[in-house]
Amino acid sequence: MTASTRAPLSPTPQSTLKRSKERGATDRADLDAVLDAGLLCHLGVVLGGKPVVIPTIYGRDGDTLYLHGSTGAGNLRAAMTGDVSVAVTLVDGVIYARSAMHFSMNYRSAVIHARPHEVTDPQERIRALRIIVEHAAPGAWDAVRSPSKKEMAATLVLALDLTEASVKCRTGGPRDDASDIENGGVWAGTLPIRQVFDAPLTSDDVEPGIEVPEHVRARFAECAEVIG
Amino acid sequence: MTASTRAPLSPTPQSTLKRSKERGATDRADLDAVLDAGLLCHLGVVLGGKPVVIPTIYGRDGDTLYLHGSTGAGNLRAAMTGDVSVAVTLVDGVIYARSAMHFSMNYRSAVIHARPHEVTDPQERIRALRIIVEHAAPGAWDAVRSPSKKEMAATLVLALDLTEASVKCRTGGPRDDASDIENGGVWAGTLPIRQVFDAPLTSDDVEPGIEVPEHVRARFAECAEVIG
Repeated sequence: MTASTRAPLSPTPQSTLKRSKERGATDRADLDAVLDAGLLCHLGVVLGGKPVVIPTIYGRDGDTLYLHGSTGAGNLRAAMTGDVSVAVTLVDGVIYARSAMHFSMNYRSAVIHARPHEVTDPQERIRALRIIVEHAAPGAWDAVRSPSKKEMAATLVLALDLTEASVKCRTGGPRDDASDIENGGVWAGTLPIRQVFDAPLTSDDVEPGIEVPEHVRARFAECAEVIG
Repeated sequence: MTASTRAPLSPTPQSTLKRSKERGATDRADLDAVLDAGLLCHLGVVLGGKPVVIPTIYGRDGDTLYLHGSTGAGNLRAAMTGDVSVAVTLVDGVIYARSAMHFSMNYRSAVIHARPHEVTDPQERIRALRIIVEHAAPGAWDAVRSPSKKEMAATLVLALDLTEASVKCRTGGPRDDASDIENGGVWAGTLPIRQVFDAPLTSDDVEPGIEVPEHVRARFAECAEVIG
């Protein structure tokens, strides 16, 4: 991902956190970090007056988030003509407390509010698709066939601005009531959660002699090292 | 999670998949499987005409999905008085194809459309909270302090029906164009993704002699075994 400005977020009432303000992070770098660490976002649109949430992949370029899909996708067409909300959430752990109501999750979450526009400039369209593919599979774009004219014609690319966003994180262990801690006798702690890559699986129809590329092996190796 | 009926989903136009129909699964058991495997959902509501998507925990009891939150949470209040969309997505792998436009993700995804209602019956409220806590932390409810009257008064519990939902999964490797496979020379395959638990971390303020409970250790051990 490219470098971004480090300007503080400028939340409007829509993106200002009403609850758990201590969990909000207003630094723009935090937003970029969550977006860059996520693999999928959840795109919320309004269709016929009702909310619809769908998972989709994305890519970030500076202050712009790119989405793509088939030109025939109703949800994307809705996103093109109205407001959207995009959430990226990373789950980091389950918080085991001494009382039921203090159970929680550690997480990093970004919620963006924007009105997307369709990207029509041919150069920006191809750049956006590269950014989306490279977000899902860093290092892959240059190793594979580029989109054909026919593929490009069937693809809708949307861009949305990252200025209206909120970031919320929970870190650390349980935050129990003093009386529950004093009473004692109950275990409390954190069960950390991580998303890991397993060993790459080569397709059956790949001809002998084609090795797993370094950009794929490196991604798995990074995980294997942490797991030990 | 309790057993559910295995009735086929009865999708309305809202939940009928428009795209990639071959990825849809209409068996009710598939919906339950996705919901039971997920940890977080993304709740979409309409606030002031605009979509808002937020991550939150949930629990399933048969044909009912339960959500909870603070009585002061605006998004939950919106969910109480209008339609919602709830998405649960599990990411299973990155698909590396031979052409940029065939890159994809393996995933299991459920999207529910419903109009929630507030749970007001005291017994159902406590049962719903138990189901939500047990979903995040199986086996934990009976080991910790139950909610106090004050905690219950500050908690909003919502129930929503699971009859209008769609399930979409992608499995298997890349599905490249025949000409790209024939041309050869490019690696293609799957980089599997898994969410794993690391070793539990005991809170500093837990008194000596209190061991990590079996329901927590078992969850980590299950992961450690898979990783090897």
